[in-house]
Amino acid sequence: MPHYSHSLPEIGLLVVRVMASDEVEVQTSTTEDCNLRRRQKSDKDGAEHEAEEDPSVERNFEGQRVPPWREQLTARALVVSFLLSVMFSVIVMKLNLTTGIIPSLNVAAGLLGFFFVKLWTKALEHIGLLRTPFTRQENTVIQTCVVAAYGLAFSGGFGSYLFGMSAKIAAQATEQNDAQNIKDPSLGWMIGFMFVVSFLGLFSLVALRKIMIIDYKLIYPSGTATAYLINGFHTSQGEKLAKRQVWMLGKCFIGSFLWGFFQWFYTAGDDCGFTAFPTLGLKAYENSFYFDFSATYVGVGMICPYLVNVSVLLGGILSWGIMWPLIDQQKGHWYPADIPQSSFHGLNGYKVFIGIAMILGDGLYNFLKVLRRTISTFIVAARKGSNTLPITDNDTSATAFASYDDEKRTEVFLKDQIPLWVAYVGYVVIAIIAIVTLPHIFPPLKWHFILVAYVIAPVLAFCNAYGCGLTDWSLASTYGKLAIFVVGAWAGSAHGGVLAGLAACGVMMSIVSTASDLMQDFKTGYLTLASPRSMFVSQVIGTSMGCVIGPCIFWLFIKAFKDIGTSGSQYPAPYAIIYRNMAILGVDGFSSLPQHCLTLCYIFFALAIIINLIRDISGKKIARYIPIPMAMAIPFYIGTYFAIDMFVGSTILFLWERVSKPKADAFAPAVASGLICGDGIWTLPQAVLALAQVKPPICMKFLSRNMNDKVDDFISSLS
Amino acid sequence: MPHYSHSLPEIGLLVVRVMASDEVEVQTSTTEDCNLRRRQKSDKDGAEHEAEEDPSVERNFEGQRVPPWREQLTARALVVSFLLSVMFSVIVMKLNLTTGIIPSLNVAAGLLGFFFVKLWTKALEHIGLLRTPFTRQENTVIQTCVVAAYGLAFSGGFGSYLFGMSAKIAAQATEQNDAQNIKDPSLGWMIGFMFVVSFLGLFSLVALRKIMIIDYKLIYPSGTATAYLINGFHTSQGEKLAKRQVWMLGKCFIGSFLWGFFQWFYTAGDDCGFTAFPTLGLKAYENSFYFDFSATYVGVGMICPYLVNVSVLLGGILSWGIMWPLIDQQKGHWYPADIPQSSFHGLNGYKVFIGIAMILGDGLYNFLKVLRRTISTFIVAARKGSNTLPITDNDTSATAFASYDDEKRTEVFLKDQIPLWVAYVGYVVIAIIAIVTLPHIFPPLKWHFILVAYVIAPVLAFCNAYGCGLTDWSLASTYGKLAIFVVGAWAGSAHGGVLAGLAACGVMMSIVSTASDLMQDFKTGYLTLASPRSMFVSQVIGTSMGCVIGPCIFWLFIKAFKDIGTSGSQYPAPYAIIYRNMAILGVDGFSSLPQHCLTLCYIFFALAIIINLIRDISGKKIARYIPIPMAMAIPFYIGTYFAIDMFVGSTILFLWERVSKPKADAFAPAVASGLICGDGIWTLPQAVLALAQVKPPICMKFLSRNMNDKVDDFISSLS
Repeated sequence: MPHYSHSLPEIGLLVVRVMASDEVEVQTSTTEDCNLRRRQKSDKDGAEHEAEEDPSVERNFEGQRVPPWREQLTARALVVSFLLSVMFSVIVMKLNLTTGIIPSLNVAAGLLGFFFVKLWTKALEHIGLLRTPFTRQENTVIQTCVVAAYGLAFSGGFGSYLFGMSAKIAAQATEQNDAQNIKDPSLGWMIGFMFVVSFLGLFSLVALRKIMIIDYKLIYPSGTATAYLINGFHTSQGEKLAKRQVWMLGKCFIGSFLWGFFQWFYTAGDDCGFTAFPTLGLKAYENSFYFDFSATYVGVGMICPYLVNVSVLLGGILSWGIMWPLIDQQKGHWYPADIPQSSFHGLNGYKVFIGIAMILGDGLYNFLKVLRRTISTFIVAARKGSNTLPITDNDTSATAFASYDDEKRTEVFLKDQIPLWVAYVGYVVIAIIAIVTLPHIFPPLKWHFILVAYVIAPVLAFCNAYGCGLTDWSLASTYGKLAIFVVGAWAGSAHGGVLAGLAACGVMMSIVSTASDLMQDFKTGYLTLASPRSMFVSQVIGTSMGCVIGPCIFWLFIKAFKDIGTSGSQYPAPYAIIYRNMAILGVDGFSSLPQHCLTLCYIFFALAIIINLIRDISGKKIARYIPIPMAMAIPFYIGTYFAIDMFVGSTILFLWERVSKPKADAFAPAVASGLICGDGIWTLPQAVLALAQVKPPICMKFLSRNMNDKVDDFISSLS
Repeated sequence: MPHYSHSLPEIGLLVVRVMASDEVEVQTSTTEDCNLRRRQKSDKDGAEHEAEEDPSVERNFEGQRVPPWREQLTARALVVSFLLSVMFSVIVMKLNLTTGIIPSLNVAAGLLGFFFVKLWTKALEHIGLLRTPFTRQENTVIQTCVVAAYGLAFSGGFGSYLFGMSAKIAAQATEQNDAQNIKDPSLGWMIGFMFVVSFLGLFSLVALRKIMIIDYKLIYPSGTATAYLINGFHTSQGEKLAKRQVWMLGKCFIGSFLWGFFQWFYTAGDDCGFTAFPTLGLKAYENSFYFDFSATYVGVGMICPYLVNVSVLLGGILSWGIMWPLIDQQKGHWYPADIPQSSFHGLNGYKVFIGIAMILGDGLYNFLKVLRRTISTFIVAARKGSNTLPITDNDTSATAFASYDDEKRTEVFLKDQIPLWVAYVGYVVIAIIAIVTLPHIFPPLKWHFILVAYVIAPVLAFCNAYGCGLTDWSLASTYGKLAIFVVGAWAGSAHGGVLAGLAACGVMMSIVSTASDLMQDFKTGYLTLASPRSMFVSQVIGTSMGCVIGPCIFWLFIKAFKDIGTSGSQYPAPYAIIYRNMAILGVDGFSSLPQHCLTLCYIFFALAIIINLIRDISGKKIARYIPIPMAMAIPFYIGTYFAIDMFVGSTILFLWERVSKPKADAFAPAVASGLICGDGIWTLPQAVLALAQVKPPICMKFLSRNMNDKVDDFISSLS
């Protein structure tokens, strides 16, 4: 689900998703260990009665029938989904065009979905007309649909690449504003473009779904947290432990919500408030080392395995602690000293490209590994005449189900398969349509660019879904920037490279962002026993809605407010010009990258592969101490602060486990989910406040002692 | 124990003591209820095993002999006391002369006393020479001695009234700097003055001791917390619950210490850091309504009865929420608009005098009540031929001991009585010496001023000891200001009223501050089974030390640093000039008070008496809902922020009791003591950092949105 901002280079952007599990074999073993550990009663503390109870979630739902997939897709669910989609799309669109920073609303979607349908069913029950009860599967289906729909309001680029093509934005840039690089928004081509590019991600998901959720057992912290929330809503009254878990979740939810609310009051202005708290000192703060008091990432840290948290922190120390400061000292030698901080010709270029190189190295390694297995099992399956793809090699089939929950969930998750041929045929058909139609919409975007993009896209989608499963961060806009750069350079400045780059950004972002966002939903579905088929259908419906709702709302905005895109106005759409500028830089090609940047990229690409090889070759015992390159690379561009948050989360969990292992095992997921969901829900009123132009009253500012003396003098000179 | 700053009118000053118990009969009943409640096992939650254990502290010490009072006064204790006294006196003196804000160091005294003697005994034990083991009583005796000694470094007024008499400070004031109002410091008269005024408080304490500790059962939060700490140090390994309580105390201690440390980094400058956090908004902050994140007062709030916390909060709302803003609107009508904020001619006059009027009303009422009982029981006792004074009227004798602890402690506390005739004779002899000698030191301070002061002093000492027992705040410097004002006005400007006022301030502050500080120690002694006699002797020894150490250190300072008292220098001694200015204002007399101020004083004086009457007349059931005037009056001048802290503390306790009553009863005092002591110990390194000129690096500043915009413009204009 969307939760990004459009990466403004000098700010840790991208936004609200992080981190989740371990890597293939290691992960399998870790999860098993974990489940085993959960079963081992700590007998040193007899007072912990709750340890005696079975911590299984699914046993609480044992009496309840899992409705077949068609019943999960009710008419009321679709109505509620549509209403919520419109509401969230309006919110996202307004934020797109004002600050450009868009929070994750998927928890809000789950909660409001529950609220509305519950209200509806209660009302019907009251007058005796209720036929089908409200189930958690239906709840998940609503959330999936809404996320798919409003996600397009972000990945459609109405505040970034798509609006960056317009004449209005082009006029603000100094170069490359000739006609071939301009495409003004119009309702027709926007809806067409959306339909063409948005469904591809859906089909690429189908094949990845089982790999990510069942085989890799990735955690997808937000998805897991949402599932806990939804399961909590629908828990029956019977189970004592379950009730206490829900109660704990509720307390943390409220606490986290109120904490978000409280923080808001102190954020009047840039670099104000707790998110700018130089917890480790000002020097560390400048290098993005600080605890930013984000309840979300503390919760994420509690859900993720220690290895992931440590990897992220190591990556942060390596990049922001060592490499960037060293490269910064070469200012004037390796790259010009007089360029703006945000330019890819400077330090920022190293950050983005080295990070992506490492992610691609890890992603490609794992992709190829999966591909090898897939092909070999495909051959086996083909011999047996099956058309679905059971990726069961020795590693995964050896995984005995560690718990009743796992067994039950996997069973449901694998029951309503979507036939693989549907996925492949769908992908190829849509790709062909795109290759044919897109060059008509954007003449500089030649058909072979699109072909290459769609050949590479599954790898990037895999990388993003994998990274998001590990760390909760969706790097969609980073991949989008890569596309701007590569395609822009390929097309060249003479052949409308700017427009080609921006269009390619859209193509890439849709697929990559869909892959990570909807995979989070699949995780939620897995944990709530929702049928994958009903979820897929719901995603298709949601995407269709989004393809119409998004452009329409954008169209209304540009018709209603004439000054959209004008700096200093009510709707400055700050990222539109930033994306266009990136595209203008991009047409210069790789030669414009700062010195040694490409060399470093090669090194880190190789490093990622080597580390993975070592992890695979060494035994499981050693591998669990070797960091995961994908997780290490995430903070390269974003900054280390969220790694500190996660580290705090894992420290809390570690201490809790030391004090009382059974309690920690029973309640830590509830606490983490509460923290993530409470913070997630707060984004909704926060967005409403921002839209209503209600500004926070106070700035909590952090100044060095010298600067403070100057400011004090200034303030006393005012009065 | 000292923990004040010299009240700078516009800052909430005075400093570090707050709040503790309920009022006479009500208190008795409350405490009983409380103890009864502690015994009632909450049977709804079977998991709470610790509830089954006896929460008695003294049972843990049952095997240990309580040494007779002479054995509690060991030579090693006196050596350690002397060293610590010198150390703390240097710290306090330096702070006196730099910022003038002096934290409470009594917890540090207890802890370091333990540490040094433990080291000493361990060493002797190691070489087989240890004869007497280190007991908690000895620990308490050391603390008492150190507190008595270094307390004089504050109440001696070396940074305030005493230094304010000097020619150097007089030269900075514009008026009243003729020879008769000047007295330059010199080692001889300073030591003499200290000896004359400092012992009086000790003797006034003797009679009050039993009333405050046994009859009124006042809590003295800091004293109670210190006792918990000392008991914790000396708890033997056997008891499981006791070990867990000590562990809990230790955790909270460390947490509170680290929190204090963390806060320090963000306090570079005035109004920086968490103590200036406008938690309830900027408007509320201006009116002193904010949570200042002080672990001490949160702990105090957890120890004090709910009624005290509510009273303080009510008083804060009444004064800072309603009265002061209303009076502020009369600026220009009731008092001139162009005077400085700190002047007693303005709003500040209302705050100080109305607050004192209410405190005096309550204090006088209770004093007379006790006096009436004392006289009647004295008559009874005289008939029986006893020379000690058992204040056992119907109320208190009816108090069945609610617990084993109470019984044991009261027994020890009443065993080694100091004969009352010693106290009375001592008081009268010292008063006569003072009346004879002081006019020779300060000619304008006529003998009849001193006589009147010493007649009134016991009432004020009673008020301060009582208020401190309730709320932990020592208002010594406020009473000192009252003396400056009254005596200065009485002497008049023609007859050296300024010097007379400052000298009277010294006379009054010594007695009042001794009364509250050493009563805290008696509470500690009560809870650690220290003999009152050994404590009294220890206080006498400590006071003697302080009378020599204080002036000597001050003398060294003014000889070594020539620029002491010069504004802007390393040792500006800011309060010296403030006290002198107050004295200059004082000589104008009551006519100079702002309009309606006296009327309001009469009203609140009467109100305090009426509320007390209602409390006494109405039944216990109703009385427990009627606020305590003394507690209400404390925030009148200081501000409401500490009331908010205490309210947070009692809210935590309330919720904890709701969740698990047995756990809260067993661990809340340990948590509260840990919070208070950890914060208390942090003041020691903090003071050392201040003395070493190590300044915090960051300012956490709070600005309104408008001001923030201006400041941001200013900052960007700098770079």
